Amino acid sequence: MMQISNFQQVAEQYDAIFFDAYGVLKDSKGLVTGIEKTFDWLATTGKEYLVITNDASRSPELLADGFHSRGLHAIEADRIVSSGMLAKDFLDMKVSDGMVAYMGTLNSAHYIDDSGLHTIPVCDLNDENTERVTALVMLDDEGFNWFEDLNKVVNLLRRRAIPAIVANPDRVYPVNKNEVSIAIGSLAAMVEHIVGKKFIRFGKPDSQIFMFALEKLYAIRQVHRKKILMVGDTLNTDILGGNKFGLDTMLVLTGNTLAHEAESRIMSTGIVPTFICESAAL
Amino acid sequence: MMQISNFQQVAEQYDAIFFDAYGVLKDSKGLVTGIEKTFDWLATTGKEYLVITNDASRSPELLADGFHSRGLHAIEADRIVSSGMLAKDFLDMKVSDGMVAYMGTLNSAHYIDDSGLHTIPVCDLNDENTERVTALVMLDDEGFNWFEDLNKVVNLLRRRAIPAIVANPDRVYPVNKNEVSIAIGSLAAMVEHIVGKKFIRFGKPDSQIFMFALEKLYAIRQVHRKKILMVGDTLNTDILGGNKFGLDTMLVLTGNTLAHEAESRIMSTGIVPTFICESAAL
Amino acid sequence: MMQISNFQQVAEQYDAIFFDAYGVLKDSKGLVTGIEKTFDWLATTGKEYLVITNDASRSPELLADGFHSRGLHAIEADRIVSSGMLAKDFLDMKVSDGMVAYMGTLNSAHYIDDSGLHTIPVCDLNDENTERVTALVMLDDEGFNWFEDLNKVVNLLRRRAIPAIVANPDRVYPVNKNEVSIAIGSLAAMVEHIVGKKFIRFGKPDSQIFMFALEKLYAIRQVHRKKILMVGDTLNTDILGGNKFGLDTMLVLTGNTLAHEAESRIMSTGIVPTFICESAAL
Amino acid sequence: MMQISNFQQVAEQYDAIFFDAYGVLKDSKGLVTGIEKTFDWLATTGKEYLVITNDASRSPELLADGFHSRGLHAIEADRIVSSGMLAKDFLDMKVSDGMVAYMGTLNSAHYIDDSGLHTIPVCDLNDENTERVTALVMLDDEGFNWFEDLNKVVNLLRRRAIPAIVANPDRVYPVNKNEVSIAIGSLAAMVEHIVGKKFIRFGKPDSQIFMFALEKLYAIRQVHRKKILMVGDTLNTDILGGNKFGLDTMLVLTGNTLAHEAESRIMSTGIVPTFICESAAL
Repeated sequence: MMQISNFQQVAEQYDAIFFDAYGVLKDSKGLVTGIEKTFDWLATTGKEYLVITNDASRSPELLADGFHSRGLHAIEADRIVSSGMLAKDFLDMKVSDGMVAYMGTLNSAHYIDDSGLHTIPVCDLNDENTERVTALVMLDDEGFNWFEDLNKVVNLLRRRAIPAIVANPDRVYPVNKNEVSIAIGSLAAMVEHIVGKKFIRFGKPDSQIFMFALEKLYAIRQVHRKKILMVGDTLNTDILGGNKFGLDTMLVLTGNTLAHEAESRIMSTGIVPTFICESAAL
Repeated sequence: MMQISNFQQVAEQYDAIFFDAYGVLKDSKGLVTGIEKTFDWLATTGKEYLVITNDASRSPELLADGFHSRGLHAIEADRIVSSGMLAKDFLDMKVSDGMVAYMGTLNSAHYIDDSGLHTIPVCDLNDENTERVTALVMLDDEGFNWFEDLNKVVNLLRRRAIPAIVANPDRVYPVNKNEVSIAIGSLAAMVEHIVGKKFIRFGKPDSQIFMFALEKLYAIRQVHRKKILMVGDTLNTDILGGNKFGLDTMLVLTGNTLAHEAESRIMSTGIVPTFICESAAL
Repeated sequence: MMQISNFQQVAEQYDAIFFDAYGVLKDSKGLVTGIEKTFDWLATTGKEYLVITNDASRSPELLADGFHSRGLHAIEADRIVSSGMLAKDFLDMKVSDGMVAYMGTLNSAHYIDDSGLHTIPVCDLNDENTERVTALVMLDDEGFNWFEDLNKVVNLLRRRAIPAIVANPDRVYPVNKNEVSIAIGSLAAMVEHIVGKKFIRFGKPDSQIFMFALEKLYAIRQVHRKKILMVGDTLNTDILGGNKFGLDTMLVLTGNTLAHEAESRIMSTGIVPTFICESAAL
Repeated sequence: MMQISNFQQVAEQYDAIFFDAYGVLKDSKGLVTGIEKTFDWLATTGKEYLVITNDASRSPELLADGFHSRGLHAIEADRIVSSGMLAKDFLDMKVSDGMVAYMGTLNSAHYIDDSGLHTIPVCDLNDENTERVTALVMLDDEGFNWFEDLNKVVNLLRRRAIPAIVANPDRVYPVNKNEVSIAIGSLAAMVEHIVGKKFIRFGKPDSQIFMFALEKLYAIRQVHRKKILMVGDTLNTDILGGNKFGLDTMLVLTGNTLAHEAESRIMSTGIVPTFICESAAL
């Protein structure tokens, strides 16, 4: 019933392609087989592309290094849009002084503070410096002690009315074929529920990351929104977000959504991609 | 404790002002007293403005007529950005054929279908035409029979995997000093929960309406985002959305948030406006 | 994979059977074929039974009449436990004076007020009598104007700190093979969310209705809880509630849970019945 | 406005008193001052009492030891009803073989397994033994590595359709005058949301713990439900649960609900105690 299209035949009709990273270009074992050829073909045919990822664990440069070290050399840092970039942009716009408390790895913090913001890991908060914290940003599920730092964050937010930013709204991420890990988005939702405050979330399916990508694309070339295709493996981030933003969308079956369950998931969520393809690889 | 600023002194520092409509410019009894002078002053000082409203019940032209008939002649239709415009834009981009089933008044539907889309009220759905419905849009809480049409919508969405759009995410709206009415956003959330599908919501605090406004503003004049002030009466739509979009925000006390509760609400929600003023009127 | 048992062979091992009504004994077209023989067999073998239903739309007597008029004469009113009985019990215990505002049919209200409580339909509330309302009870989805009375209820609960009782927590109920109706439980959840207050819910899966049934059973005969079987067609009310109460449970496939989806629903909800049978009919 | 009653004058009208433990009898610093006299008075006047607590971290014997070591010698283990007892009761009734995986301290597990159940801490789960796990029980927020074990639990529940029990539904608990700790109920809610399965919760406000207490009381003396008073410091557990169960309720101001916020919390939650007293101490 479900019609499976050929990636190349679909992509030919567009001027620019937005790719999700995890589950589309790479997975827990490395690159999706044959994905390099897709980028060769994009270069040959003069199509533009961007990678749009809910990954705030490191800078675009380090994310690009990750592709290069796996053998995908085409993707440069300036073609990557991450939810971490939106968190950084927000902090640069809205938080001018004080300290930004963070949960995540050193890499994730370095990216945030390279424009001059002062960051402090939640574990270093104490009675003296807590009053100087002007924002909290949750970047990654690693790099901190869950028990101690989640309890610290709850008490920080009970005491202070400061913006709390979640730079990756995902609830889980796959670690291998059968298992997932709890993502920072789930921890943030738990804290948000406990303290009863509204957090600010950046990342797909929220429109702001697509807007950010569109601005980046326009700086390269003016493309009509009808000529952009969003390619992703996850219905409730890539496809829902792309649809809402008015883009045509393609679900690929190399990640979160397996071939045998795609149709029932589309039916049960009501999130309908414009196209379904086996893979974004040629 | 809470510092109350003077509207004019704050607004002077910005090049463009975004106003919420209900609770800022008008309320259940008419215009906010003195608000006309604010628009005279904006014209004199050459500041740009837009009205950003979660009102999908009619076209920008009819919304502007509403201001004119109350004596506020400065606001033209092209200065109004409504969540209904985003719903219409989505439908124009993503739903090319078939029929769009709607819940709302005739006025709300006329606006949606004036670009050629075929609309049908939910009450007219039957066994024959249901298969041709390609989207559902929830526009307004009036204009339909709640019992019959909400039940029809639940069964429509159980049977069909079509996009469901909510053009006003508000849960309630004030009808007089003491009472509220249930808004279409609450009805939509109930249906969404029953059918277990993800609806597409347009309107503050979602970023897409701010992006839409920004594009409209840029067509008039290029203004740095740091020089735009968002003025609203509701923390979890106007202020949360403005903050997230990177704008400075001003809470006014002429609507949903009363003076005596402003401070405790800011503390309990964690949504902090850049400024608080009695009113946007001069 | 999923093992289907024979109802009689399973039931033989128990001293008392608790039956859900809708989807087990009857459906939208009438009695489940052959269900009368089950009750003949229960009488012959001296097993006790009770009917436990989330139906607050009428008294046990009228519910029993409904079975009789369809040809199932075995079920007397004193064998029926309904969520409406718990609501009535609560009101009798906790609300001694004033008026109880209700949403539902006349039948549902008559049952509540037959012990002397003064009831008033929400549509009759006005500025004068609202102050005398001491509780709100939501009984049935019919018998009132959704638009007018739901708005009235929201404003009543914003103004007054009174207990709000939901006598049927179900979200939907089936009206024919393909369609459902929105139940009072969904309307209550919407109002609860809008006003931010905690409602008191009676009915499966909550333990209180099972406790009520157990007391009723003990008045007839002392049966060890291990010798009671709960039979139902709905995982998240009958089976979850029965399991939690420590009873063995049987899922039948004559109602909400269809044969082809039973296994995947058990897996996805984590609600595991002790037995699965085609039907409770012999 | 809010009427403050005298504990003794209220309690005199009842034959049995149910006390919450934390915030009523003791707090982070020790016993509530003067609470011993309350138990002397209960003994003198021949009133019965029970302690009803959402504490599954240890056995009733160890909970009683905790009171004794602080100087409150009146409370024996057989007067304590804990949510852990309900979890244990459920496991004894419903899980006859296999292993029960648990999150919590050794003390919490020892209580569960002393009737012969085989328990295993989540940290000891591996590829071999996971298939033999027949239930998961979440007992306490301490005694395990949050990062490793929460991730293990998510993957366990994705793979297996087994009952998941939460023996303490509280979201947080106070650790000193200004700070709280995240309770196991919050961690459980996060996991529940991630895996999309329904957990079984025991503890106030759920009725089952009150039913359990009532049975315990009846074994001592037959008391009409109208002659039982539930005393607690928390609106949404003690007072909501007591009200729903049909008991008269008393809010005391020695714990979670402070004097200056009691009235606004009652109004905003709609949970109304029958009485409010400063303290349960004489």
